[in-house]
Formats: sequence, C-alpha cells, structure tokens
Amino acid sequence: MNISIIGSGNMAWHLAHKLKQSGNKILQITGRNEQTAIALAEEVNAVPNFLLQNIDVESELILFCVKDDAIQEIAVSGFKTEAIVAHTSGFRSKNLLENCSPNFGIFYPLQTMKKGMEIPFENIPFLVEGSNDTTTQALQNLALELSKNVHQVSELQRQYIHVAAVFANNFTNHLYELAENLLSEHHSSLDILRPLLAQSAQNVQHTSPAKLQTGPAARKDMFTIEEHLKLLSSHEELTKIYSILTESILRSREIQE
Amino acid sequence: MNISIIGSGNMAWHLAHKLKQSGNKILQITGRNEQTAIALAEEVNAVPNFLLQNIDVESELILFCVKDDAIQEIAVSGFKTEAIVAHTSGFRSKNLLENCSPNFGIFYPLQTMKKGMEIPFENIPFLVEGSNDTTTQALQNLALELSKNVHQVSELQRQYIHVAAVFANNFTNHLYELAENLLSEHHSSLDILRPLLAQSAQNVQHTSPAKLQTGPAARKDMFTIEEHLKLLSSHEELTKIYSILTESILRSREIQE
Repeated sequence: MNISIIGSGNMAWHLAHKLKQSGNKILQITGRNEQTAIALAEEVNAVPNFLLQNIDVESELILFCVKDDAIQEIAVSGFKTEAIVAHTSGFRSKNLLENCSPNFGIFYPLQTMKKGMEIPFENIPFLVEGSNDTTTQALQNLALELSKNVHQVSELQRQYIHVAAVFANNFTNHLYELAENLLSEHHSSLDILRPLLAQSAQNVQHTSPAKLQTGPAARKDMFTIEEHLKLLSSHEELTKIYSILTESILRSREIQE
Repeated sequence: MNISIIGSGNMAWHLAHKLKQSGNKILQITGRNEQTAIALAEEVNAVPNFLLQNIDVESELILFCVKDDAIQEIAVSGFKTEAIVAHTSGFRSKNLLENCSPNFGIFYPLQTMKKGMEIPFENIPFLVEGSNDTTTQALQNLALELSKNVHQVSELQRQYIHVAAVFANNFTNHLYELAENLLSEHHSSLDILRPLLAQSAQNVQHTSPAKLQTGPAARKDMFTIEEHLKLLSSHEELTKIYSILTESILRSREIQE
C-alpha cells in the first residue's frame, strides 16, 4: 500500500518503520517539526513534506500520527482527499476526519510507543474502525500485516477500552511512582519491590486479577490497615489513595463472597 | 541448621521445601491443621507435631510461618525456648516474640507465596532483623542460603517497605481487577490490555516509573479526562478512584516541572 504519514513523533516513528518493513511504501512524512520529519523520512526512504496541500496524490492511506488536539486542527484546515484517512488516537472520534475524505477511520495500536524502543508488534492489539466496509476492511488488512491481534470495535467500545487502560496501566504506574517516593523517603528503593512486581505482572498474564488479590484488605486485616494509615498520617494524598483503594478492595471481596 | 517450622500453609510450604533443599534439616512441622501438617512433614522428611510444648529441643531455629494474628496467640501461650525464634510477617513487630526466647527476630521474604507455585527464590528480597547481633547474623546467613537479595532493616523501615508494597502490588492488582470488570461490561476482556501490561511491567524493571508515566493526566489532556469521567458517570467508585489518581498524577507532574 502507498502510505503517507502525518507526524514524526513516537507513533509515526514506529508505524513508519514497521509498515515499511512489512512491504508497504511510505511516500511522505509530513511534519511541522522540520528536523524530525526529515530524519524519519530518510530512515524509511520517504520524502519529507511540510504542507498538507502537497500530500502525494498517489497515497492510498494517509495516517494521522499526531497528538489528539492536532487531529482536529488538520481536519478543519480544509484538507480533502479521496484516499483513506485514519488517525491513531485511542479516544478521539473517527468523525473528526469526516470532512477530509468519505473514507475515514481509526487505526489504533494499544501500546505505549517511544522512539527506539523495541516493540513486539505481532502481539499488539490493533483497534480498527472505518466509515464504510471497504475502509474497515482495508484498515483491518493493514493491521493484520503488523499484528495477529486485530479487533474491529465501535467507537464507544474503544473509548471504554481506553479508560480501562488508564486504570490498568497509567494509574498502576503512578502507584509504582508513589511507592518509589515513599521508599526513597525511608532509605530504601523500588529495587526491593521489583522482584515482587515482576512476579505479579507475570501472574496476571494468565490469571484473573480477582483471583490474585493479596494484601491486608483482601485478608480483611483491619489491624494492619489501621497501622498502615498511621504510618501514612503525614501524607494527606497517600492517605486518601490508600483509603479509597482499600475500601474498594473490601467492597469487591464482599460482592464475591 | 536444625529448623522447626510452625505452620503448614503457603509460607511454611515454600520455606520448608527451600530450606531443606539448601541443606538444612527440617525437624518438625507443627500445625493446627492435622492434614496439611502431616502432608508437609512427609514431603520434607520431618516429624509432624501438634503441641508447642513438644517442639524438638534440638531445634536451633523455630520459624513462625503463621498468620499475623496467630503470632501473638503463640507468643502469649507461655512457650519458651533458648533457640532462635523468628516470624515471617512483613508488618508485625519482632517484639511479639520477646517472651518466647532472648533470641528473636524477623525472617521475611518479600514475595507472594502460593503452594505449588514456582518461586525464583534467588532474587527474592529477604528482610531480616534480630534482637541481638548473633541472631541477626544467623538469620542473615540463613537467608543468604536462599537468596542473594538479603537486607538488614529496622522495624520501621520494614513497615514502610510493607506499605509501599501495598501501593505497588496490591493496589495495582486491584486496578487490574477494576479494568477487567469495566471491559467485561463492554463486551471486551482483559486480554486486550495484557500485552500493554506485560510491556509496562518489563519497562519498570529497569526504569523509574516517574519517567514511564503516560496517559491523559501525564499529558495534561483535560479534554480526555473530562470525557473519561463522563463514560464513568454511572460508576461512583470508579469516578472517585479516577479523580483522585488523576489529581495525584497532575500534582506530581507539577512538582517535577
């Protein structure tokens, strides 16, 4: 497929490389950042471009790998094409693109992308959706070239998956950060927890988290919970987070019993 | 070392097997649960026992692998010895054992133990502490037979490590559970997030979570945060948890900037 990519950040970097590797031709890298657009274009044998109206008419797919807010900016810029246009946002509506082309959709890899990082594409879930059957099919076929884990989902479903990912991924990482801060205040480091975290992450790969829950709240060990809250008494925010998550664990145990 | 173990649950099971494997002699398994005590004793070539006063006087170490509340029960039972006594709780005080022996302490492996599970003992952090130097040294040497990751820590430090583990391990697992519930309500499953979780868990093994934070709060994407809260509006508890953790991420970004 002849593909033009708008953007030259982390997402553009990974998709450009991977799409080229799997046999597609990357015609252009269109970017606002001259330096990164030229660099990425060179890496994937594409032409750097800086104006939407100059996007190669040979493009069969124009992929918006830009920040959420920039999708809308481009969409209202008056840019028009007959090619498929798709964006890679996990949350924004495909309808943002409806004025750009009759053939628009979503091409969303559910993974954190950082330039240069090794990404095991073959397992990454791709969520695709198109404005019509041909578009959906084209996006699905392209995703299947990169991954065996491709899902056609509705907009609402994708949004719930996105918010679930915030709980399971962003919030958990923040809890790691809070733990790290607490440990460093007490002359220790996250290293002491890393083996436990590795083991737990491995367990949740094949077991339901409801079955893996441990800790004082899961044991209804109210004594330890009270003592923990005493240790945290000088940290208002940690106290609030501890209390609300402990209550939530206690409540979910009640539901299960 | 001649070791007697009190308890026949998950912790007793793993430590009995591993301590025997590394060349120690398990003299007795003392338990309230006749069936599991006999079974474990048989597996590690020990004698099952059901009365504290019958604990083998040849024991050099008596290891309390029992629930937190049971430590105190045994401690006030009048049981006395000259051997080292140690318990395996992450949170309870070593002083609970001070009436049992002049030589008492903590022998705490920072890992979730389930019978039959494969545990990579060589990396598990062991936190040890003794009532005197000889006891501390003996517990440390024993831990070093099982793991290369052994730490002498004070009671307060161990308690902060324990509460940090609750944040980084128990609470994160609960967030996985909340995500799983939300996904199953919307005809999806945790499977769609598992590759992302695996990647993130791997990243945090060698990088500080502060550097790995992604998601709408880390990007200060207030539009997506508002939209997420609309999606969660019928779930009071999820809304509270989402709000408090989002605020905490926003605040920690401010501190870092």
